[in-house]
Amino acid sequence: WEGLSVLAPDALSSVAYGTEEILIVLSAAGVGALWYSLPISAVIVLLLIFLVVSYRQIIRAYPTGGGAYVIGRDTLGPSAGLLAGAALLIDYTLTVSVSVTAGIAALVSAFPSLLPYTVELSVLVVAFLTIVNLRGVRESAQLFAAPTYLFIVMILAMVAVGLFHRAAPTPLAAYVTPTAVSVAPLLILRAFSSGSSALTGIEAISNGVPVFKEDSVQRARRAMLLLGLFLGSMFLGTSIIAFRYHIVPNAEVTVLQQLADRIFGHGWFFYLLSFVTMAILSIAANTSFAGFPQLASIMARDEWMPRMFLARGDRLVYQNGIIVLGIISSLLIIAFRGNTDALIPLYAVGVYMSFTIAMSSLAKKRWQEGNDPHRWVTIGMGLFGSLLTAAVVITSVVTKFTEGAWIVVLAIPTIVWGMRAVHQHYRSVADELRLEDLTLVPKPKALVVVVPVASINKMTLATLSYALSMNPEEIVALHVAGTPEREARFHARWKNWNADPRIKLAVVESQYRSVIRPMVRYIDHLTGLFAEGRVVVVIPELLVEKSWQNILHNHMAVALEAVLIFRRRIAVTVVPYRLQQKPVNSKPS
Amino acid sequence: WEGLSVLAPDALSSVAYGTEEILIVLSAAGVGALWYSLPISAVIVLLLIFLVVSYRQIIRAYPTGGGAYVIGRDTLGPSAGLLAGAALLIDYTLTVSVSVTAGIAALVSAFPSLLPYTVELSVLVVAFLTIVNLRGVRESAQLFAAPTYLFIVMILAMVAVGLFHRAAPTPLAAYVTPTAVSVAPLLILRAFSSGSSALTGIEAISNGVPVFKEDSVQRARRAMLLLGLFLGSMFLGTSIIAFRYHIVPNAEVTVLQQLADRIFGHGWFFYLLSFVTMAILSIAANTSFAGFPQLASIMARDEWMPRMFLARGDRLVYQNGIIVLGIISSLLIIAFRGNTDALIPLYAVGVYMSFTIAMSSLAKKRWQEGNDPHRWVTIGMGLFGSLLTAAVVITSVVTKFTEGAWIVVLAIPTIVWGMRAVHQHYRSVADELRLEDLTLVPKPKALVVVVPVASINKMTLATLSYALSMNPEEIVALHVAGTPEREARFHARWKNWNADPRIKLAVVESQYRSVIRPMVRYIDHLTGLFAEGRVVVVIPELLVEKSWQNILHNHMAVALEAVLIFRRRIAVTVVPYRLQQKPVNSKPS
Ligand SMILES: [K+]
Ligand SMILES: [K+]
Ligand SMILES: [K+]
Ligand SMILES: [K+]
Ligand SMILES: [K+]
Ligand SMILES: [K+]
Repeated sequence: WEGLSVLAPDALSSVAYGTEEILIVLSAAGVGALWYSLPISAVIVLLLIFLVVSYRQIIRAYPTGGGAYVIGRDTLGPSAGLLAGAALLIDYTLTVSVSVTAGIAALVSAFPSLLPYTVELSVLVVAFLTIVNLRGVRESAQLFAAPTYLFIVMILAMVAVGLFHRAAPTPLAAYVTPTAVSVAPLLILRAFSSGSSALTGIEAISNGVPVFKEDSVQRARRAMLLLGLFLGSMFLGTSIIAFRYHIVPNAEVTVLQQLADRIFGHGWFFYLLSFVTMAILSIAANTSFAGFPQLASIMARDEWMPRMFLARGDRLVYQNGIIVLGIISSLLIIAFRGNTDALIPLYAVGVYMSFTIAMSSLAKKRWQEGNDPHRWVTIGMGLFGSLLTAAVVITSVVTKFTEGAWIVVLAIPTIVWGMRAVHQHYRSVADELRLEDLTLVPKPKALVVVVPVASINKMTLATLSYALSMNPEEIVALHVAGTPEREARFHARWKNWNADPRIKLAVVESQYRSVIRPMVRYIDHLTGLFAEGRVVVVIPELLVEKSWQNILHNHMAVALEAVLIFRRRIAVTVVPYRLQQKPVNSKPS
Repeated sequence: WEGLSVLAPDALSSVAYGTEEILIVLSAAGVGALWYSLPISAVIVLLLIFLVVSYRQIIRAYPTGGGAYVIGRDTLGPSAGLLAGAALLIDYTLTVSVSVTAGIAALVSAFPSLLPYTVELSVLVVAFLTIVNLRGVRESAQLFAAPTYLFIVMILAMVAVGLFHRAAPTPLAAYVTPTAVSVAPLLILRAFSSGSSALTGIEAISNGVPVFKEDSVQRARRAMLLLGLFLGSMFLGTSIIAFRYHIVPNAEVTVLQQLADRIFGHGWFFYLLSFVTMAILSIAANTSFAGFPQLASIMARDEWMPRMFLARGDRLVYQNGIIVLGIISSLLIIAFRGNTDALIPLYAVGVYMSFTIAMSSLAKKRWQEGNDPHRWVTIGMGLFGSLLTAAVVITSVVTKFTEGAWIVVLAIPTIVWGMRAVHQHYRSVADELRLEDLTLVPKPKALVVVVPVASINKMTLATLSYALSMNPEEIVALHVAGTPEREARFHARWKNWNADPRIKLAVVESQYRSVIRPMVRYIDHLTGLFAEGRVVVVIPELLVEKSWQNILHNHMAVALEAVLIFRRRIAVTVVPYRLQQKPVNSKPS
């Protein structure tokens, strides 16, 4: 029960858009077609029951949790895992986009003046979640519990009151007799595919079995059952009362809000439901901010994703995964103008594809284990489940192809292809770097050090001292010629100085007063003369007291470094020179 | 005559907003008050005549040109130069903002559907000018000539037709008899201050005397006279016909466009004038993209501005000045919502302040030269001119203080203060770096080299070889401990390898899997043990074949470098390691 408030919001919050999405599709065929939401919802609840039973098997089969990627990888092999990984990354991203826009829709229903700012508000919420998660969320189960329970109680209360009270009794026959309006079967399928979004998120408990501290499998299975009961009754109840109150979806007020308004009036319940809906949807979005970076890090460890997803920051969170999720989900929100309905066609494909792989894995795992006489039931259930969920995927792709499903159809193979390319690259780099022969040991070579010298001053002295410390074969003091009189003065001073016999002065002419170009040209020329890895450029960097003073200095150093860092044969050293050799405050961080 | 098309647009284009700005201020007191635009315009033309005569003296006194900064600096001293410099930088910036927004206003007058995109279009034009100037504009006098002449011809034609034709003859008395509407003197002053923007840009010819190739002083003086004649007749003519046709300024259509519409109808003249006005205003804005970077570079050479304004790019333009001008003028346009009227109060202050300094310089120069019996006329003219233009500055500040003039009043001392701080800083750094004692010569010191080592591979081998080449006292191979089993394997391999007796292995524990933090902590600790400048960190950098592969590598190297580059006592070396030692294509750029 305690794990429910962390793992359930993703699924429960789907009630906020499931019924509405069905009604939106059906309303295209006229108000009379809305009756079909009842059988469609019933079928979805049947699907839910089946999925709950199957997922209780999955919990038992994979007691350490792990999402479809881990399950698929360990049971069906890397290809299935990769497919599941791609589907799940898309799922996590869309969970954020869909939940946040649906949450803002609930808020806007209560405060219509916010309508023009839907996109801005949604992006703001994503930015907020990103920052909170980058800072690391501590034990948030308590914080999340209240909105979750309140959402359950309020929706069930609304369903109960809506079913038995107030409205003129609709004849029972109206619920069971098909409406006279004839509706194309394709539209029914489209409505079903939209409604299947109501079940998104039910996989969360099986992914997170270890969240339940003791006796976890038992508790997770019970939680799954509870989740199924609540989700099923809330979703079906909402669909029924939406029919009873003749709710027609519109762009300004969500179906849930319309129901609250009609059943309880425009009072405290209406406003509270708005905030609670927004809260639970934000919690659902927040779930992805844990799931996405974790999956990305697991896949990075398997070398399917860039290693940067393994990096943990000061707050010990996988910061890069959080940032990438925040950016992509924001871009999706902006691209789809903060419109939940427009995002839904993309959503179901990823989710149900991961369901399919989880179910197949279950079947294969039980098959391999052998012996148990009851295993055939589970195998059959897994196979049937995978077919069923695959059917939902296909239905979604076919009926919603032009409405956005094509994006996912394109994205999944692209992501899989990209992951394979990453893997391939890491493998080949590792092969190339491998040192088999341990008799090969480091050997010094004679270095050629280049030091840019503009004039003879204390910084030049320090930098050349550093260059001499490297014991190079040769030091080149590289000077770019200025005006003739400055040049003459410099040469006289240099001769007079007589710094060290190993330091040779090289003067290059500057055309059009450019300083960097002639230096780089000379260094490139020099590099060509010596074996790879022998030329080092030592760049002095003036350290100033106050940070604003930085814009006054080091332009040459930065520009030179920027060019040379990409030169494949040149090592670059930056030597700091501190003004006023006062005591240093080098803060160990 | 030939230099006119380059130097005149800045001044001539002011006709596009001069009259309008007067009318906008007066219309606040009702339509009847618009009569006052006639005497105000007359006074401004008197001011113009005086300025033209004075500037012809300035051209003679400063035959090599140079703006108010150079003139002020060389005649009145650095403080006056600095004040003029600050005023001119503001002037150049506002010339861009005002001209571009006024140009877009002309365009929008012809195509009202563009009205909502005023700010976007203006910023686009600034971006275009920035890019064109960054690429370097070649000999553009020819290109600029057509719109300039066309603008002169069209405005004068419109004035001529408007004066003598078509409209019901307004009684002559109406022009000379003050209107019955009583207007507060303050409003008259405010209108005058707005109208003084009509003379902005007349200094351009005296700044650019050398543009006239041969006999430059003679030609520049003639050009000044011509400019005065055209500007005066166009401005006064526009004001008179605006009164004759009872033009009332509005936010959608400019006064010039209203006049064209009334006098020639909504035909080709109307549309052509719109484009020509936009073109000459863009050319005026473009003038600043030459002037601002050049002034910034002159002031940077005098060490009043950051040295980065001296840097020239591949195209030999002062790129930083161009970029800074583009950014600041865009920000002004955005802040003032692309509204020319809102920017005008800021404009006059800077321009007339630079006039004042130029006039004072003229007086002082002639005074110092002595002897010439006629010099008293010029000295008097300079003194009177400086008082007159100072009066315009004071009028603008007082009457427009709350409307934006306060920004300039605040900005000028701030900029002067900033320039003094920059100067002070450069002076003190130069003092500190100065090497008086040439017996001090570079001396080597014993280095301590730290090399991060994750595993023993070919890159490690190469990096340690490089470290050995530096002939250090000590090499520390710094390793961050991983899991116990990986740790044991690494240690066994390391022992087996036995790389070099000078290389010591240092293993640091990692808390929470962070790699960078323990390394930095160890390096900081080590730095504390040795004298400044002895510790060097050598970071290997993996070079990949394709640029997309960069996101797969070097996160550790980049992160470590980013931290250490700010460590004041540590030198950092980046050593490239190339995969596949294939032939290098190091492109000399
Ligand atoms: K969901
Ligand atoms: K989900
Ligand atoms: K390099
Ligand atoms: K101007
Ligand atoms: K100007
Ligand atoms: K450093």
